[in-house]
Amino acid sequence: MTALVVDAGGTSTRSLVVSQDGACLGYGRGGSGNPVSAGLDVATISVVESARQALAGARIAPAEIDTWLVAMAGGVADDDVEAFAAPMRAMGVMAAPVFRGDALAAFFSGTWQQNGYALVVGTGAIAARIEAGALAKTVDGLGWLLGDEGSGFWIGHRVVRAVLADLDRRGPTTSLTPALLATLSGIVPSGRMLDGGRNALIGVVLETLYGRRPVELARFAPLAFHDPADPVAAAIVSEAVDVLANTLRSVTTADVTGPLVCSGGVLAHNPDVARRIAAVVEEPGRQFVVVDDGLAGAAQLALRLRGPVDERTFQRIRTTLAQVVK
Amino acid sequence: MTALVVDAGGTSTRSLVVSQDGACLGYGRGGSGNPVSAGLDVATISVVESARQALAGARIAPAEIDTWLVAMAGGVADDDVEAFAAPMRAMGVMAAPVFRGDALAAFFSGTWQQNGYALVVGTGAIAARIEAGALAKTVDGLGWLLGDEGSGFWIGHRVVRAVLADLDRRGPTTSLTPALLATLSGIVPSGRMLDGGRNALIGVVLETLYGRRPVELARFAPLAFHDPADPVAAAIVSEAVDVLANTLRSVTTADVTGPLVCSGGVLAHNPDVARRIAAVVEEPGRQFVVVDDGLAGAAQLALRLRGPVDERTFQRIRTTLAQVVK
Repeated sequence: MTALVVDAGGTSTRSLVVSQDGACLGYGRGGSGNPVSAGLDVATISVVESARQALAGARIAPAEIDTWLVAMAGGVADDDVEAFAAPMRAMGVMAAPVFRGDALAAFFSGTWQQNGYALVVGTGAIAARIEAGALAKTVDGLGWLLGDEGSGFWIGHRVVRAVLADLDRRGPTTSLTPALLATLSGIVPSGRMLDGGRNALIGVVLETLYGRRPVELARFAPLAFHDPADPVAAAIVSEAVDVLANTLRSVTTADVTGPLVCSGGVLAHNPDVARRIAAVVEEPGRQFVVVDDGLAGAAQLALRLRGPVDERTFQRIRTTLAQVVK
Repeated sequence: MTALVVDAGGTSTRSLVVSQDGACLGYGRGGSGNPVSAGLDVATISVVESARQALAGARIAPAEIDTWLVAMAGGVADDDVEAFAAPMRAMGVMAAPVFRGDALAAFFSGTWQQNGYALVVGTGAIAARIEAGALAKTVDGLGWLLGDEGSGFWIGHRVVRAVLADLDRRGPTTSLTPALLATLSGIVPSGRMLDGGRNALIGVVLETLYGRRPVELARFAPLAFHDPADPVAAAIVSEAVDVLANTLRSVTTADVTGPLVCSGGVLAHNPDVARRIAAVVEEPGRQFVVVDDGLAGAAQLALRLRGPVDERTFQRIRTTLAQVVK
C-alpha cells in the first residue's frame, strides 16, 4: 500500500505520502483546507496543491496511490467529496477519499493506543473521547459563529473587541491595543467615518476587519499570549482555559484512562495552556502529549485501514515525518 | 418645504413624507436598509421601496420633495450616497440626501430639547450624548462582529450558542432550546453530519444558521425575554443590561442633564429592560422616554435644516405620524 493522507485545517493544509510500514516519503503544504470556514473552492485548491507537492516530493506516480485519507474538521458534505476527488482524479489519483474527523487524527498523532482523549484548539476547538480506535463522543467543534469555545477564533475575536472597547473608552486600557494596531499599520481608512468625535483608529480597525472573512480574526489569537502581565489579555486566556476545560470535561469518563493528546496551533504554540486545561482530567499515570497537528495521525489512520498499527510503526511515522518536513 | 425622511435600520426601513409644519402625509416600510449589515443592494431596494410607498400615500409628486434626510447606523460611505440617490432621481426625487446617525434620530423621536442622551438597541447597539442638537459623543455601534455589546445580535447570538451548548451537553439545560427549535421546525438537515454520536438536532441548527447571514441571529433575541424563570435566559438578559449600562455610562457627563431617549426593537419591546439600564444614569427629574424607532426624529431633523422646532411642531409630528402609520 502507498497512501496519500491530507490534514485539512482551518489555517493550513498538510499532505503526506506514506508506505504501509510507516515510512513517510513526501510532504506538501497549502492554505486553508476547510470547506466550512474557507469555502469549498479555496479548500479544494489547498488540498490539491499540498497533495501535488507531497507526490512530487515522494517521487511517486499518482496512479500508485491506492489509499487516500482526508482528516478534516466540521464533518463532510456530499459536495466536498466530489469537489476534492475530481481534480485529484485529473491528477491521476484514482483512489476514492476516506474522511476522518480532525479530533481522531489529532489523537493518533500522539499515540498508537486505542483509547483516550483528544483536544484540538486551532482556528476551531473540539474535544473527543476515543474508544477502540474510533470516536465515542465528540463535543463542540461547532464553528466560529455558533461554537468553538476557547478556539483561536474565539480568542482573536475577544482580542479585537477588547481593543475596540479600549479605543472607544468603554473598556480598560490594554497593551493589546498597540500590539493589534502594529499588525494593521499602513492601512488607510476609506470614506466610511464615524460620528460623534471618535478615535479615528476605530474607523481603521473596522474598515480593515469587516473587509475580511470573520474567521480570519483567529490570526490575532497569538496577541493574547504576548503580555501575560496585561490584565485584559490574561483574562481572555483564563476564560479560554475555563471554557476549554469545560469542553474537555464533557467528554471524559472514569472508564477510559488512555492518553490525552492536545493539538492545534493554539495548544502547540502554548503548551503551558494545554497543561492548565489538562489539569482538569489529571489522573495519576495519564499520558499527556502535545502534537503540532493531525498529519501523523492521519497517516496512522490510513495504515489502520489495512490492519493494526504497533508502537514501532507509529514511531517510524513520527521519525520519518520529521525528516520529510525538514 | 416638503421633506422625505428615511429611517434605515438593520431589520426594517421606514419612510415618511412630512411638511414644514410637522404634518406627516405618507408612510412606507421596507426591509433592512443598512449597507453594512444587509449589503448595499438590499439596503438600496429597502430605501427606495419604502420611499415609493410614502410618496404614494402622501399623494405628493416626487419632484415636490425639496429635502431628503436619511437616518442610518454605521456611518456613510461615498458609495452609499450615490447608490441611494441614483434610483431616487430615476423616480423623480431630485433632492440630494442628507445623512444623520441613528442615535441622533432616535433622540429627536423622543424630545424637542437640544441636550440629552440616546440609547439605541435594535439589531445593533449605540449610545450618544447630544449637545446643542448635535452628536457630542458616540460610543459603540461598531457592528455585529466587533462591537454592538448588548444588541439584538449580541443577545440572539448568545441564545443560539446556549442552545447548542445544551444540545451538546456542555452547557445547562434551558427552555431556550425548545423555543429555538420550534422556530426551525420543518427544516431537514443536508448531508453534512457530525461524528461522535451527537444529537442530530445540532446538525439541523448548524445547517440552518450557517446558511444565513450572521447578523440574522438578531431575530432570536426575543426568545431571551420569553421565560424570565429560565436561569440561562435571565443571565443573558442581565449581562446585556450590564454591558448596555456600561455603554450608556461612557457617554454621560454631569454637565448634560437632558432627557434619555431609548429606542430600537430590543428596548421598544422590553421597556422594563430600558428602565433597568436607565437606572445607571438616573438623576432626580431626568426625563426618560422609550420610542419605537428614529422616524419621528428623522422628520424633526429634516425640519431643523430650515429652522428651530418647538414643542408644538414636535407633538404634531408624533400625532400625525401615528395617524399615517395606522
